[in-house]
Amino acid sequence: MVDFKDIEAAAKRLAPVTVETPLLRSSALDEIAGGTVYIKPENLQVTGSFKFRGAYNMLSQLTADEAKHGVVAFSSGNHAQAVAASGTMLGIDTTIVMPEDAPAVKIENTRRLGGKTVLYDRYSEDREAIARGIAAETGSVVVPAFDHERIIAGQGTVGLELMRQCADFGVTPDQVLVSCSGGGLISGTALAVKTMSPETSVYPVEPEDFDDTARSLISGERETNDPGARSICDALQTERPGKLTFAINRKLLGAGLVVSDGEVKEAMRFAFRHLKLVVEPGGAVALAALLGGKIDIQERVTVVVLSGGNIDAEMFASIQKE
Amino acid sequence: MVDFKDIEAAAKRLAPVTVETPLLRSSALDEIAGGTVYIKPENLQVTGSFKFRGAYNMLSQLTADEAKHGVVAFSSGNHAQAVAASGTMLGIDTTIVMPEDAPAVKIENTRRLGGKTVLYDRYSEDREAIARGIAAETGSVVVPAFDHERIIAGQGTVGLELMRQCADFGVTPDQVLVSCSGGGLISGTALAVKTMSPETSVYPVEPEDFDDTARSLISGERETNDPGARSICDALQTERPGKLTFAINRKLLGAGLVVSDGEVKEAMRFAFRHLKLVVEPGGAVALAALLGGKIDIQERVTVVVLSGGNIDAEMFASIQKE
Repeated sequence: MVDFKDIEAAAKRLAPVTVETPLLRSSALDEIAGGTVYIKPENLQVTGSFKFRGAYNMLSQLTADEAKHGVVAFSSGNHAQAVAASGTMLGIDTTIVMPEDAPAVKIENTRRLGGKTVLYDRYSEDREAIARGIAAETGSVVVPAFDHERIIAGQGTVGLELMRQCADFGVTPDQVLVSCSGGGLISGTALAVKTMSPETSVYPVEPEDFDDTARSLISGERETNDPGARSICDALQTERPGKLTFAINRKLLGAGLVVSDGEVKEAMRFAFRHLKLVVEPGGAVALAALLGGKIDIQERVTVVVLSGGNIDAEMFASIQKE
Repeated sequence: MVDFKDIEAAAKRLAPVTVETPLLRSSALDEIAGGTVYIKPENLQVTGSFKFRGAYNMLSQLTADEAKHGVVAFSSGNHAQAVAASGTMLGIDTTIVMPEDAPAVKIENTRRLGGKTVLYDRYSEDREAIARGIAAETGSVVVPAFDHERIIAGQGTVGLELMRQCADFGVTPDQVLVSCSGGGLISGTALAVKTMSPETSVYPVEPEDFDDTARSLISGERETNDPGARSICDALQTERPGKLTFAINRKLLGAGLVVSDGEVKEAMRFAFRHLKLVVEPGGAVALAALLGGKIDIQERVTVVVLSGGNIDAEMFASIQKE
């Protein structure tokens, strides 16, 4: 089981290669919120999302023998770029199975970063089977997108970092809002945050129709999403919560918050205008929850994690002008 | 005369109210550069530009008697927002004389931040005369956009901060590229950088037809721009270098670099795609100089200051899609 010490160790491992993303304030946001809001912009992280933390944490701990056979991963794009970049930095070959309808910028970046890409049809093919096939053939290690202790520990450095930064500012957050799909980021973050401040609440935010974690937290079982579900948030479309991640999340998280595509777009426009940040749909859900009034923020200190910023220019421009 | 101690004092004064903007790396940028590049994103600063540093540094040092009569400033937008926000934070009334063709977002933000705005025609009216008239009437202090010791010292904290951050990374920059208009940011920055590392070069970057500092550095006199000049960089359109700023700049700066509107747009697209940052035209000139090959960056450590990010959504979208 992953614990706080693993996150501390990951933070030391990651310090030389990651960006310590700042905690940003915005007077416009505080005004709307009627409270104190800090933004943790992981879109500024290496490869444009928090995913680099987990991927590098795992790849850097492979044995020499494992490393020489390369790794394989499946991802809609952010984990893909993170694995490709980590592999290139560590001299490990990477193969990434990606949906053919992933944002072009994510596929291009994965290749530019040194990853070999294998495309598949998101709605008819089984990416796990494809990845396992490649692994069996080449003897390479599969790097899961979320359900692995070293991935969770890596993502948890977001929580460790934001708590230390809050302490530097002399505040303790009352609540932390984090985007959630498979649950790697939020499980690691919650582990760090709740260890350092048990009174702080950590809330998962999901897109409409991909609210598997919200429903799972109610039922206590890992619920699945409808295979026909669609969302603007290409980064947050897993079938259901991870096994390891949900075991942590069911103990540590507050109730799940759910946002619509319209609320996500509104948050992306706010980030452009007031924060000067390029945020992708899946990266904006926590901000969308805050702006959409999904939770009481009056007179509280709230930290919002923006988890990624990889979006095509065409889509970004059209959302900004809506 | 402003000196390094003034910048250190400003940094202490500003620490509780400003964002310590991070130093960002980008593998795409390093690849193109063939060297090591650090980005200092002042578009993430309070009010969306470095201008808040100088404005707050000056307003926070007014006497109680001065403060009670309010302040007046003239600005195309970034200094305006900075003065308005500083005034609101310190309980000082602010009046800002702004060109009527300034980006709508800058005028709206100035009002939202608590500034009273007075609009004028950039090409037929004299903003300094309007501001002085208001000052004479109300007894308020004029807050210059650049040519004042406390403004220069405040902007200089950008240089102090980036040098300290470089030291944390174990590097000394070979060169620092900074946008230049009246010269407040670059004079303060150069003062800090050259005090801490005399071997580091500091280069001013200006838009085509607003290259008054580049020409002044050659002639040794303060040269003026053609009144008919136009540029996409609304933030970098002063008539000529400041008196105080140029006295510093002529001693400390390397040769001026000049970029075209097309190069500025290219840099804005790069910032969107690879850095996940919203940068306004005037804020992107230093990056444009680097990407446009205006200076040798091979095997050197270069710091690029992005000075602001206040741009209308329509314009941003149209540039991204070009």
